[in-house]
Amino acid sequence: MSVTAAKGFTAAGIAAGIKENGNPDLALVVNTGPRRAAAGVFTSNRVKAAPVLWSEQVLKTGELRAVVLNSGGANACTGPKGFQDTHATAEKAAEVLSIGAGEVAVASTGLIGVFLPMDKLLPGVEKAAKELSEHGGEKAAIAIKTTDTVHKTSVVTSKDGWTVGGMAKGAGMLAPGLATMLVVLTTDADLDAPVLDKALRDATRVTFDRVDSDGCMSTNDTVLLLASGASGVSPEYGDFAEAVRRVCDDLGRQLIGDAEGASKDIRIDVINAATEDDAVEAGRSIARNNLLKCAIHGEDPNWGRVLSAIGTTGATFEPDRLNVAINGVWVCKNGSVGEDRDLVDMRYREVTITADLAAGSETATVWTNDLTADYVHENSAYSS
Amino acid sequence: MSVTAAKGFTAAGIAAGIKENGNPDLALVVNTGPRRAAAGVFTSNRVKAAPVLWSEQVLKTGELRAVVLNSGGANACTGPKGFQDTHATAEKAAEVLSIGAGEVAVASTGLIGVFLPMDKLLPGVEKAAKELSEHGGEKAAIAIKTTDTVHKTSVVTSKDGWTVGGMAKGAGMLAPGLATMLVVLTTDADLDAPVLDKALRDATRVTFDRVDSDGCMSTNDTVLLLASGASGVSPEYGDFAEAVRRVCDDLGRQLIGDAEGASKDIRIDVINAATEDDAVEAGRSIARNNLLKCAIHGEDPNWGRVLSAIGTTGATFEPDRLNVAINGVWVCKNGSVGEDRDLVDMRYREVTITADLAAGSETATVWTNDLTADYVHENSAYSS
Repeated sequence: MSVTAAKGFTAAGIAAGIKENGNPDLALVVNTGPRRAAAGVFTSNRVKAAPVLWSEQVLKTGELRAVVLNSGGANACTGPKGFQDTHATAEKAAEVLSIGAGEVAVASTGLIGVFLPMDKLLPGVEKAAKELSEHGGEKAAIAIKTTDTVHKTSVVTSKDGWTVGGMAKGAGMLAPGLATMLVVLTTDADLDAPVLDKALRDATRVTFDRVDSDGCMSTNDTVLLLASGASGVSPEYGDFAEAVRRVCDDLGRQLIGDAEGASKDIRIDVINAATEDDAVEAGRSIARNNLLKCAIHGEDPNWGRVLSAIGTTGATFEPDRLNVAINGVWVCKNGSVGEDRDLVDMRYREVTITADLAAGSETATVWTNDLTADYVHENSAYSS
Repeated sequence: MSVTAAKGFTAAGIAAGIKENGNPDLALVVNTGPRRAAAGVFTSNRVKAAPVLWSEQVLKTGELRAVVLNSGGANACTGPKGFQDTHATAEKAAEVLSIGAGEVAVASTGLIGVFLPMDKLLPGVEKAAKELSEHGGEKAAIAIKTTDTVHKTSVVTSKDGWTVGGMAKGAGMLAPGLATMLVVLTTDADLDAPVLDKALRDATRVTFDRVDSDGCMSTNDTVLLLASGASGVSPEYGDFAEAVRRVCDDLGRQLIGDAEGASKDIRIDVINAATEDDAVEAGRSIARNNLLKCAIHGEDPNWGRVLSAIGTTGATFEPDRLNVAINGVWVCKNGSVGEDRDLVDMRYREVTITADLAAGSETATVWTNDLTADYVHENSAYSS
């Protein structure tokens, strides 16, 4: 159901010819109202793609009527011409939808440093507009895939009659702040832009920002939340924020589950930290340790690599009080050898690492995946 | 010639049986004087192996008479028993050499979180002491190998009659502060401990600290510099520091050249930075970008990944003024598409990435290597 699960939205996904293989590569999402409130969160990379610069700008009004998304090219590091291309994309969508270009966000994904084939993209926008449908969410989700093997959608519906739905793409270059991904969330809840903005930031902080596939932060990360108000219901903030968080959490898990070349999904629970920031810092350091990620790939409960990763952080801890469990077996106790590592069963896809900092009561969960030869192949065999 | 190139040193390398495959695994280096000045630099990881804690302590006197090094086990994350084992190793060396345990540094390398087989290690120290020789440097270098495919030694001799020589091991878990390695440098220059300390820190700051194989910082990194004074010559500081820097630079290059699974040595020159710290930060960020390292493995001049890595740093730069050359071809100019990427010849092992921050006049060089399926295999197939 994707972005058209909530009332007040239409979407389309088509093949514009941006991808040379003819796969779908252009999506259009339109908020048919009555409301057009919107919020967005973008990459914290200082090298930002043209569509990120554009969309940050148009979102300042707190309103969006449409989003154009393309795969097949990131339009990042493309200079003034790249920005003009994004602008022309928004203008074309505005023209065919009879709205203003300032009401159109643009998101792109694919190879950095190449120009988009505008002779294909602009006719594609016209074609997509003709195919807009209240059932188009699935096709839109398919059209934004790059190296994703599956498309990703999620929906949470409230018993009070409102819905939050969304779609995501992302498979590599996933790192906090944000993961490399395009995400569009829609809701028919009747809420204004400041509330959407707060709910979105509260959600991404504990979901997408804690998904770290390969430590590489993208130039194009974009998460948008559009509200149509079409349900006529204005939910309590807490209920709405929880629904947004659940959709983001689900999509984030789908991103990790489809990470390039991955064979293991690794859940890192940092517990008993002095502060939540400490817990996140330790979790990210563990998530980025290539040697640990290789060991997990080999089903080797190599807890020494967890400790050496924690040791590089500024978190509060004493080395001789650290404890580490892998899949529930406390293989490291008080910074030294704990239970027998042969007791750890690592046959299944999901692996849980619990790192006990023994320094307080704060926790955080960070998701990553293993590092595999397939990841290397996928990222060395061709430009991506 | 290794650690016995300088006069006033003997060394040995033997198989003590710590490694199950029977390969050499224990080295002993002895300063026969007349001077016993020494300095050391250790990992900045907060989780430090027992031998690091021990050696930091004994070095406070500024004197060392001997160093015991073992491969086959890191003696890290081994708690009080691990520290007792290191202490017992120093006591045994002291006993057989008729010196004090406080004059013996210990260094260990291998798997974290397992106890050393002291029933093999202690007799090994006795055996090594019997084989000490002025020609033992090569054997010592061989005995400290872990996943190294070759042993690493380097020597610089001054026309004024003094020498700096050294040995190193290290192949994975290489990251600044320091790389995972054990290094012993010796000199027959007649210098005191504060001068050795300054020369060693000045050298490691621009050599080992700028070698980053896989972003993983070890618990055991140790670099020692021992001076016997046996040449009778007290060189100028600048001459001596330069010799130490050259030996460290050469050994650091050998570490990168033998990095686990690597097929490319990548030299990252960051130029026109506002500060040297900015240049180092940008260089390290590029060196740690898994996607770039995969691309280089695939001989793909994917400069977008260089920009996205720079974009995650706090260095001073404007995105639209960044320039990147790969093997001398300026594939990115002013943050956008530059010369034709097909002009880049990446057939050879050494690849040079030049990142121009266009923000000042400072520079730094960081070395790394590509990320390969072999690295994954080597670090997932067994505990290492």
